[in-house]
Amino acid sequence: MEAAHALGIPIRSECGGKGLCGKCKVQIKEYTYTEVERYTEEENEYLFLTVDELKQGYHLACMVTIDGDLTVYVPEGSLLKRQRILVEGVSRKITLDPNVKKIYLNLPKPSLEDNRSDIERIKDSIDYEIAYVNLEALQQIPEILRESQFEITLVLLGDELIQCEKGDTTEQCYGVAFDIGTTTVVGYLMNLNTGEENAVYAQMNPQIRFGDDVISRINYAQNKENLEKLSMSLRNCLFDIMDKLCSRAHVKSEEIYEISIAGNACMHHLFLGIPPHSLAVSPYIPVIKEALNIPSTLYGKKMYILPVIAGFVGADTVADLVAYPLGKNIKLLIDIGTNCEVILGNEEKILACSTAAGPAFEGAHIKHGMRAAPGAIEQVSIDEEITLSTIDDDPPLGIAGSGLISITAEMFRNGIIDTSGRLLTEHRFSSRIKTVGTMREFMLTDTISLTQKDLREVQLAKAAIFAAQRILLKTYGIEPEDMEEIVLAGAFGNYIPLESAKMIGLIFDFPLEKIKSIGNAAGMGATLCLLSKTERERAKKLSGDIDYVELSARKDFQQEFMDAMFFPHSRMDLFPSVRTILSRKSTSFSKKTTSRV
Amino acid sequence: MEAAHALGIPIRSECGGKGLCGKCKVQIKEYTYTEVERYTEEENEYLFLTVDELKQGYHLACMVTIDGDLTVYVPEGSLLKRQRILVEGVSRKITLDPNVKKIYLNLPKPSLEDNRSDIERIKDSIDYEIAYVNLEALQQIPEILRESQFEITLVLLGDELIQCEKGDTTEQCYGVAFDIGTTTVVGYLMNLNTGEENAVYAQMNPQIRFGDDVISRINYAQNKENLEKLSMSLRNCLFDIMDKLCSRAHVKSEEIYEISIAGNACMHHLFLGIPPHSLAVSPYIPVIKEALNIPSTLYGKKMYILPVIAGFVGADTVADLVAYPLGKNIKLLIDIGTNCEVILGNEEKILACSTAAGPAFEGAHIKHGMRAAPGAIEQVSIDEEITLSTIDDDPPLGIAGSGLISITAEMFRNGIIDTSGRLLTEHRFSSRIKTVGTMREFMLTDTISLTQKDLREVQLAKAAIFAAQRILLKTYGIEPEDMEEIVLAGAFGNYIPLESAKMIGLIFDFPLEKIKSIGNAAGMGATLCLLSKTERERAKKLSGDIDYVELSARKDFQQEFMDAMFFPHSRMDLFPSVRTILSRKSTSFSKKTTSRV
Repeated sequence: MEAAHALGIPIRSECGGKGLCGKCKVQIKEYTYTEVERYTEEENEYLFLTVDELKQGYHLACMVTIDGDLTVYVPEGSLLKRQRILVEGVSRKITLDPNVKKIYLNLPKPSLEDNRSDIERIKDSIDYEIAYVNLEALQQIPEILRESQFEITLVLLGDELIQCEKGDTTEQCYGVAFDIGTTTVVGYLMNLNTGEENAVYAQMNPQIRFGDDVISRINYAQNKENLEKLSMSLRNCLFDIMDKLCSRAHVKSEEIYEISIAGNACMHHLFLGIPPHSLAVSPYIPVIKEALNIPSTLYGKKMYILPVIAGFVGADTVADLVAYPLGKNIKLLIDIGTNCEVILGNEEKILACSTAAGPAFEGAHIKHGMRAAPGAIEQVSIDEEITLSTIDDDPPLGIAGSGLISITAEMFRNGIIDTSGRLLTEHRFSSRIKTVGTMREFMLTDTISLTQKDLREVQLAKAAIFAAQRILLKTYGIEPEDMEEIVLAGAFGNYIPLESAKMIGLIFDFPLEKIKSIGNAAGMGATLCLLSKTERERAKKLSGDIDYVELSARKDFQQEFMDAMFFPHSRMDLFPSVRTILSRKSTSFSKKTTSRV
Repeated sequence: MEAAHALGIPIRSECGGKGLCGKCKVQIKEYTYTEVERYTEEENEYLFLTVDELKQGYHLACMVTIDGDLTVYVPEGSLLKRQRILVEGVSRKITLDPNVKKIYLNLPKPSLEDNRSDIERIKDSIDYEIAYVNLEALQQIPEILRESQFEITLVLLGDELIQCEKGDTTEQCYGVAFDIGTTTVVGYLMNLNTGEENAVYAQMNPQIRFGDDVISRINYAQNKENLEKLSMSLRNCLFDIMDKLCSRAHVKSEEIYEISIAGNACMHHLFLGIPPHSLAVSPYIPVIKEALNIPSTLYGKKMYILPVIAGFVGADTVADLVAYPLGKNIKLLIDIGTNCEVILGNEEKILACSTAAGPAFEGAHIKHGMRAAPGAIEQVSIDEEITLSTIDDDPPLGIAGSGLISITAEMFRNGIIDTSGRLLTEHRFSSRIKTVGTMREFMLTDTISLTQKDLREVQLAKAAIFAAQRILLKTYGIEPEDMEEIVLAGAFGNYIPLESAKMIGLIFDFPLEKIKSIGNAAGMGATLCLLSKTERERAKKLSGDIDYVELSARKDFQQEFMDAMFFPHSRMDLFPSVRTILSRKSTSFSKKTTSRV
């Protein structure tokens, strides 16, 4: 796997190369040494490889130690597909007031009568406070001044003079905002004079080869060297994206003066090279929460990093709220990922918590789960027939997170599973029920199925998310009807089939018009902070105002979680519209059964 | 010369390796190629090499291009001797208030109920504002906190948290002050808890191999690569000195938290890697004057750099005035070097100027001139006999700057030179007058002489220094008797024979008790700024309060300079005590002449 990654061949590694996910099967075709014929315990024990595959020399790529030359065949299914990445989010009108300011100056030339220093000459000619002069700028200033006949453009960042350029360059003034997700990194090139977006570019987070989720990466970062690897890979990724943005928008890299960054607490720590271990173990402590201004001496560019709220409520959540500020009325904001952030409040009082949804909705721990790439099933409807729709209408390869919600809801609506999540055998699709080993599966196609275990994963995920919502409402002291709207943030939130989500009890039973998907609001929040100091103030205020609720310290969480394991919930009164649908359905279903008999 | 320097053999290079000083003679004994037999134009034209030396294969080291293996003999006289370096200066009582502060903390451990971030936990527990946290500190804090069971010591620099250490380390808190001179660099290791000096170490400025004086170094710094070389050599020198200081005082390098630096404007610019060219050409513009705080990301240590006043009045002069503040009464402060700074004023109004004394007092441009190293003549008395005293009482090797003043004064007092500086032949030491080519010389020993040209150099130097003093008094609108005292700063000022200095008209004719040598006050000023923020405020205020007088813009300078070319001056009424001595002496001299006849 390491060799493949080094060659740029993106073999899947959902488990981070530990032999636990079985997604990296490769066939070793020719080899110069016989060690490759041996199988590791992981390969033998977890039964990822079939007898046929074993005979044909298939291996888990992450388990093979290379000792000589090899020829390897990588099947389509083991390749990481380019994932659908959502870069758009809500937009909001703001007043342009970036931290970067350019000032053109035509200075009087020095003489024996006017022998002020270069810096005095500059400071005296502007009506703006310069408190610091960057040493690198200082090293360039004397030559730039004299070569340009004292016609220059200052680049100021807050009260610091960071650069000095020949002639009038005020027209060229750019910044880049980044949303660093666990899976994807999106960069937005912004014109700081106009506030326009000149280019967007997204790339997979290169840390994926060290593990799919934050926990695997935190584990990987146990020693300094590995932490440095994670940190460097992210930094290089940002610089790659900047290069791409620059060439797309025909902007020079040196015309980018500031970078603004939002990411979850783990990405935040890893990017900054801060050991992230305390985030992952109780009591889940971030090292620093406040916003940071990184001097350009470190990475060549000035960086503004949005503040984080808690170990599992990161700068991405702050960015969400910058992009979509809570108004006078109370809103519920949910950002679903492996880690799911839930925010409840209005502009006066805000509660936040984080809940471990697990990676089911990202395709991991699901037998035929996959990321939202072409061929992933994202919508299913079950009536007379089963209708699947896939991303890009490719032939179905597996099940995306949105598909998983859709399938589960449809199976539940059609009585294929009961309220406890058990796969039933007595229904009109019983021919699709198979038993492999001791486990029941529901065949969606000839090769793609949903297993009883998969259903349990869905239940665990949605129970964690719903229990978190319940606890926040209880802590806030309000009922669901007191809320103005439910806001789904994040790429995944954008693709959630809302009726299905209500059907399985992932979110409160709210009318559709009161549920809003705001897409990649984190990227938008990072962009707003790049364009306006007022928005940075907002971010700062948010990180101070939000009260974090630690669910693991709540005695009532376990009961809420157990109640939410049911479809849609043990308390059906919480889901009146689901009850209505089910009562209708069961009638129609019994009718059909009757008619068939 | 480059090869020798690379091997650590300190061959003299007063002219910076341009073939102009003739001090780097070496004998090439064996060689594998014949190119070395050729002589350059410089070697042939300037007549530094005698016919005998040419026959024996002597060369100027700086003119030989190496093309193969060589065996070289370096005569004693071509070696740079370790110079006497003055490290002591005035001392002054101040209140200890360093910028570095250490705070020991025993923090409550995190829990699910107390899940503040590491930085919040720290900030909440101290009664002190932390505005910034250094990223490097941030990267270390989580592990340090947990490995030390949350017992830590914070290191704060102003409002920035720069470091975090395990346990209680408040006892270990040091800083280093540097005085970077053109010729020597002195470092002082200070205990920031007690204000005590724990070690002093001085070293030659390694830039000497790029030229003796600031002008040669500025010329050398014409391109980026050379500027980088100059800058690096100085930085390495500072780190070498720190190592020496640490091992002398048994202090660990990481226990040094801040460095304070004073130096002239050229050293200031070169150290910081700022192109210094504008300092050297009219109108002599420094790039920046204000004090600078250099982040540790640049050179590994936080640095405070004292402010400069003008192109030729540097941070060393500011440091002088920090160490020896001007009081209510007006004082005249003179710091003699190749470049001589003159300050006049009291705590309310201060004038400063700089005058080009040339390197005569440092041994350059003087036939037998040398630095203040063992064997250098530093005092001469001429009565019946000529009595020489040398540094360390070594056999005389050449003439130090102090010796040059002493000799000139004694020759003048004894009528060997006249008031215009001409070497006379009619006196009782006429046997010591020789003529080499067309130039007269006065033989001090069988081999060491003072030439007519040397005397001209002394005249030029002292005229520049005295004219500067006159202009400042005129500008201030005072007479010499309005001044409380004359203060001589700098290493050289400490060794000036004061009566001789008055005799030749280097300084005003003041009673000895009103002339004070304050030694290396620049080092002391840098030390005070390390120990107290109040002293930094003083330095800041000084750099703003001082009015710089640009002599080259003064029309009256030339006349003052011409008047001061005479011994002691064209206006003898300015030097009443010299007139008295001369009248006495001429009587006694004529008496003796009479008796001889």
